[in-house]
Amino acid sequence: MEISSTFDNMPGLTHDRPVQTSSFCQQFASVDGAGNYDDVNNVVIPTPGAPDPRAQNSLRQSWEMNYQEGAIYLQEGENNDKFFTHPRNAHALSAYLFAHNHLFYVMELLTAVLLMLLSLSEAPAVPFLRLDVYVHATLELLALTMVAFELCMKLRWLGFHTFIRHKRTMVKTCVLFIQFIEAIVVLVRQTSHLRVTRALRPIFLVDCRYSGAVRRNLRQIFQSLPPFIDILLLLLFFMVIFAILGFCLFSANTADPYFSTLENSIVSLFVLLTTANFPDVMMPAYSKNRWSCIFFIVYLSIELYFIMNLLLAVVFDTFNGVEKMKFKSLLLHKRSAIEHTFQLLVSRQRPDRVCLKQFDGLMRFYRPRMTARDRFLTFKALNHSGATMLSLQDFYTFYEVIGLKWKARRSGEHWFDDLPRTAFLIFKGINILVKSKAFQYAMYLVVAINGIWILVETNMLNDGVSWTHAVPWSYIIFLTIYGIEVLLKITGLGPLTYFSSGWNLFDFSVTVFTFLGLIALAFDMEPFYFIVVLRPLQLLRLFKIKQRYRNVLDTMFELFPRMASLGLTLIIFYYSFAIVGMEFFADVVYPNCCNTSTVAASYRQINVTIGNRTILEEGYYYLNNFNNILSSFVTLFELTVVNNWYITMEGVTSQTTHWSRLYFMTFYIVTMVVMTIIVAFILDAFVFRKNYSRKNREPDDPEDEKGIVFETEVSQTEALQTLDLYKHTLGVTNLSSLQDMCVALERSGHSSLVFLGRRSRTKSDLSMKMYEEEIQEWYEEYSRTNLQPDETFHRELDSPEASATNSIN
Amino acid sequence: MEISSTFDNMPGLTHDRPVQTSSFCQQFASVDGAGNYDDVNNVVIPTPGAPDPRAQNSLRQSWEMNYQEGAIYLQEGENNDKFFTHPRNAHALSAYLFAHNHLFYVMELLTAVLLMLLSLSEAPAVPFLRLDVYVHATLELLALTMVAFELCMKLRWLGFHTFIRHKRTMVKTCVLFIQFIEAIVVLVRQTSHLRVTRALRPIFLVDCRYSGAVRRNLRQIFQSLPPFIDILLLLLFFMVIFAILGFCLFSANTADPYFSTLENSIVSLFVLLTTANFPDVMMPAYSKNRWSCIFFIVYLSIELYFIMNLLLAVVFDTFNGVEKMKFKSLLLHKRSAIEHTFQLLVSRQRPDRVCLKQFDGLMRFYRPRMTARDRFLTFKALNHSGATMLSLQDFYTFYEVIGLKWKARRSGEHWFDDLPRTAFLIFKGINILVKSKAFQYAMYLVVAINGIWILVETNMLNDGVSWTHAVPWSYIIFLTIYGIEVLLKITGLGPLTYFSSGWNLFDFSVTVFTFLGLIALAFDMEPFYFIVVLRPLQLLRLFKIKQRYRNVLDTMFELFPRMASLGLTLIIFYYSFAIVGMEFFADVVYPNCCNTSTVAASYRQINVTIGNRTILEEGYYYLNNFNNILSSFVTLFELTVVNNWYITMEGVTSQTTHWSRLYFMTFYIVTMVVMTIIVAFILDAFVFRKNYSRKNREPDDPEDEKGIVFETEVSQTEALQTLDLYKHTLGVTNLSSLQDMCVALERSGHSSLVFLGRRSRTKSDLSMKMYEEEIQEWYEEYSRTNLQPDETFHRELDSPEASATNSIN
Repeated sequence: MEISSTFDNMPGLTHDRPVQTSSFCQQFASVDGAGNYDDVNNVVIPTPGAPDPRAQNSLRQSWEMNYQEGAIYLQEGENNDKFFTHPRNAHALSAYLFAHNHLFYVMELLTAVLLMLLSLSEAPAVPFLRLDVYVHATLELLALTMVAFELCMKLRWLGFHTFIRHKRTMVKTCVLFIQFIEAIVVLVRQTSHLRVTRALRPIFLVDCRYSGAVRRNLRQIFQSLPPFIDILLLLLFFMVIFAILGFCLFSANTADPYFSTLENSIVSLFVLLTTANFPDVMMPAYSKNRWSCIFFIVYLSIELYFIMNLLLAVVFDTFNGVEKMKFKSLLLHKRSAIEHTFQLLVSRQRPDRVCLKQFDGLMRFYRPRMTARDRFLTFKALNHSGATMLSLQDFYTFYEVIGLKWKARRSGEHWFDDLPRTAFLIFKGINILVKSKAFQYAMYLVVAINGIWILVETNMLNDGVSWTHAVPWSYIIFLTIYGIEVLLKITGLGPLTYFSSGWNLFDFSVTVFTFLGLIALAFDMEPFYFIVVLRPLQLLRLFKIKQRYRNVLDTMFELFPRMASLGLTLIIFYYSFAIVGMEFFADVVYPNCCNTSTVAASYRQINVTIGNRTILEEGYYYLNNFNNILSSFVTLFELTVVNNWYITMEGVTSQTTHWSRLYFMTFYIVTMVVMTIIVAFILDAFVFRKNYSRKNREPDDPEDEKGIVFETEVSQTEALQTLDLYKHTLGVTNLSSLQDMCVALERSGHSSLVFLGRRSRTKSDLSMKMYEEEIQEWYEEYSRTNLQPDETFHRELDSPEASATNSIN
Repeated sequence: MEISSTFDNMPGLTHDRPVQTSSFCQQFASVDGAGNYDDVNNVVIPTPGAPDPRAQNSLRQSWEMNYQEGAIYLQEGENNDKFFTHPRNAHALSAYLFAHNHLFYVMELLTAVLLMLLSLSEAPAVPFLRLDVYVHATLELLALTMVAFELCMKLRWLGFHTFIRHKRTMVKTCVLFIQFIEAIVVLVRQTSHLRVTRALRPIFLVDCRYSGAVRRNLRQIFQSLPPFIDILLLLLFFMVIFAILGFCLFSANTADPYFSTLENSIVSLFVLLTTANFPDVMMPAYSKNRWSCIFFIVYLSIELYFIMNLLLAVVFDTFNGVEKMKFKSLLLHKRSAIEHTFQLLVSRQRPDRVCLKQFDGLMRFYRPRMTARDRFLTFKALNHSGATMLSLQDFYTFYEVIGLKWKARRSGEHWFDDLPRTAFLIFKGINILVKSKAFQYAMYLVVAINGIWILVETNMLNDGVSWTHAVPWSYIIFLTIYGIEVLLKITGLGPLTYFSSGWNLFDFSVTVFTFLGLIALAFDMEPFYFIVVLRPLQLLRLFKIKQRYRNVLDTMFELFPRMASLGLTLIIFYYSFAIVGMEFFADVVYPNCCNTSTVAASYRQINVTIGNRTILEEGYYYLNNFNNILSSFVTLFELTVVNNWYITMEGVTSQTTHWSRLYFMTFYIVTMVVMTIIVAFILDAFVFRKNYSRKNREPDDPEDEKGIVFETEVSQTEALQTLDLYKHTLGVTNLSSLQDMCVALERSGHSSLVFLGRRSRTKSDLSMKMYEEEIQEWYEEYSRTNLQPDETFHRELDSPEASATNSIN
């Protein structure tokens, strides 16, 4: 790009009118009390020679409205909000602005979390958190009022019609209503009744702006459900057939409690599906007739090894398709948002281009915290064609550029380049040392020795760990070595480079932890001993040696956010089940509770005489109860792991009714769905990653060239012109960032400075590359139809203006 | 194709010489005692007018040799035998022929199976199969001698150099040698010593010709191993770190046996990896401090839910690649075999074409059982170009055409078309009835009612099944309905159409079974009562209603052969482990054996006093032993299912040494590998199938257009000419099939008859379509290099002749 060309022919910086007017501009203008300019489109174009200050003012206002609406479109594109929820008028706009900022989001989140946390203190409460009924009921009412207030804002912003069309919001309203009534009832009666509806509380959390990932997961789970249910039916069907068979074959054996009735038979085979009662379920029959094992082997082969895997295959296949479709619709939604915004930014004079002024105005609304320099650099990064203004094609890459963090490229390679000669040589030496293979392998060796040391040391403590107060000398030696390594690396690479690597961060934090452990040991602070135990984590560093492990661990970190959101989704399911469990099964199991059931031994805590010896039988299963929400969570986790889950089920069943089994079985199936999704997700992510690197033949060393980097060159004249433009024409006040840039340019002595914009690579970037060809097809298809199903509503409103734009062209 | 054009310009049916001569022709000729014609290539071309009977005879012999070698190449291509094992001379040929026929294969298989079955009767024998030492040792020696004989044949066929280069054969030889010595030792000492080497016996089975699928599976398993082991190390590494952590945290608790020593700690966490001891392993710590559950939750989340799934992902990814590479190398190998064969079939006169005579000669060696008619039809099916002779391009499709079953297309649609009018109308009515939706849904309804009936009936027998001698009337009614349905369908569709559908076969056999059950009930034959319980299988018919189930069940049947071979592979692993287990752990567990271990309760069979009541505690785990090979198999299956496997492990360990755990842990890891492969296989097969139908937009109804169909039209003159050709020129004796064809043509009254060749669709066909584009690339790449790595050896031998061919061209 030619230096300073950005400013040549910049048309109508002050007088140009927008092609399209913000949909809430009209009403806003009349509300503003001006009255005269009730339609901005009818404003007479002021001649440059004789500026009418009033018209000028109205024009600026009109542009500002456009910037704001454009920013809202971009936001909607980013958040995947459907355009039919787009604010329609000035009232809606103020409500929209009120409801769309981080303060409001945080309030929303906190209210939802508070509501969920209340179950810690309600009726079957965690002992040390118990609250009186009137306290927690009042708290709940308060939180619910907050939710109601939030809903009112939403109603105001969406308008009544859109509001009742929005399903999620309607469900939320209904739940809110029920919860309100129940809370009042509790407050009046001063005692909790059977409040199973508390299980619906997670809905408030799911509806939060910040829970987007959870919502997406839930949607994905529901989309995978139909094929899942089909195969599940097949599974259950075979189960019933085998249950009838098993009942016919084994019910004659009185020593066999598993098949004594058809119900038992079905339950036994359901549990056998999870393998939790194998081989016990087979044993009574097996001891009578050795060939009866065939029944169980056939059952497990069909159900467990075939149909269960088929289930995974079906879900994986669906998941695959859903992921791609999700990406496609998101991509097209963003594209459509960009098109909407573009239409709002173009002026009558150049209806197919956007200039810096308009772009800057948009960015001030879209990213209020962004500095003027970064806005300018983003504009330059978008500008592929090298022309003065942005075309729609340029603008399409908006979302790829927006997240970049800009930094001037350092002239030198090392942080110590500017230091005096002696210091430079010393640091250069350290730099070469820490970058050498020998140093790295020496450190691996130290870590390995440390690992073996810990293993041997621990193995010699066979009588249990005794916390001697003396700090072992090996501990100090290894810590010293690690400390020196960290210092060398920080000085050699410079703190910025050092901490920009995840692995170094890991090294650093482990070393710091080890140091804290030393202090804990030296000063005899018992509660912090657990830090000492974390020492073996050092050994993880050894996995840097092999490429595959680095890949696996990198994949692990890439997957982490998504995994966390899946975990959160699981916790939401847990919460609902925990509430139901607490309402029905609180305090039903206790030591020696279930002597009539088949699992009595697991609950027994009593002296038992065997032959002539007496031993204490300690069955701990009474600990797996639903007595408060924390215990419930642990119990549900145990049920998720599946092993021995039927002991908990049978224990509870023996104290309540047969129908309790329905709860446990439903829970099993729900967790099975979520777990299958998790497996499918990991499979998909890994295979996708592999295919990606196969397709793009990535460099073997993933350390360099990670993330997305954009480069932009800014010349001195350009910088000064921009500063001038901002100062005089745009009236932007906070220009320190631009001034800093000019100063830096002057000091560097070069005529231009290169800025690097960096951001980490997301799944979306990978998908963009993977589906390159298909994306082109999608775009073509999209531009052919040019109407997204859920956009029709808004497009219809826009169409007169859109056609007007076309007629101008 | 022009009728009868096949016979125009058929060059040199009798006098044409082959371009290339079989590599074992030369030696064979001299062995044959002819002596004069020591090089066929030097034979003077006999002039057509004056046929020299001797030269004619030698020429014919030379062609026959070529046919035979061509057939051998094709066979090698089909079986994926590398060409460096191709017989090189006449001696090798006779050994090759001896070792390559089904009689020999069956002998090979039976010997291997006999050797494996011997373990039923050896030392820890199955009670009713016990044999004296001298009996089973003699049997073993006999079997081993057979194996030695087979190896000798192989040595003769391969030649010494190739023999010792062939790894599998060398391993087999070594194992044979050891087994021989051991068998003799056993016979001399008249008692079995510790014969762990018996675990190597499956090698003889794996080496059998018929075990090709098992060998492929094993190869795939070994190819998937390197990435698997990497992730496994990661898994074990985390395990050790957590074991040290757990030991430090929980060893202070004396009530906690799981973390009392570092070894216990590691074993507990290994078992926890399989979830088999969860939540028990957590309980002692949990009862002391509720927060200790975090340790276990974190451990399980990382190990079980993340790394284990990663393991599957890595194996799945590798599996995917391996499957494709396997397909590629097989395809290219077949192509190369076809090229070799083609070179042997072309004559000097037309060195780029193969005529019917040569093709027929080849087929007589390649498929000796094939009728003359089918050979002719196959030739016609290969002939895409419509020319008289086959080009190499035509010949490339050889393997796709060879498996076809030929049948003349029926003139009419129904089997009853030729019946008299009245009968026709009746059958037509039945045909319309059984094909109607109403009839189908009526039958579904009957099945559903039957299902509910069985369920209700069974549920009312809550006191166990009593085999009343009276046959219940519902049984008879439903059986009658099913019987009528079967009869209607058979008469309406014709037996051939009826039985060609898998679903109908299933219906039929279930109905027959139900009928047999009725007889068993009516005549009070107790041992056959199990047939009665198979009745619920009728319900499976309901799955025909939904398309997805049909797909799933079809996939199931398609997968079945491969699943069976995977199962066999697993059994081979089982066998080895069973032998080792029997050698070390036979008779170590028995009732009340393990009172010192933590799992004593599972082995206890004694009266226990709880408080003031006395109950019989029945621990059945002593049944899970290694006392004979059948018990070992059941025990190993239980270990495969994983649940409660540590009870067996701890029981055995408490009676033997710590090192026994190594056996169980190794077994767990081995089965984990095989099971992961099975899951990966099912995933891959299913996803492949789905992608295939997505790509090819298959018709929704899979009933029609299943399998591969070729069509060939044969005219009357063509048929007669062929008959003539076969009779007079080729000297083929058994021509009844061709004569039948001529008769059928005459009777039909049409001038030509269309023959349909059908075969079922294989995975290879699907792959051909899926990788269409890539296959073209492979072919190009292949023809560029034209040298497969493992062919170089043979090509070098061929090259002089190959260049000779080229020079002639």
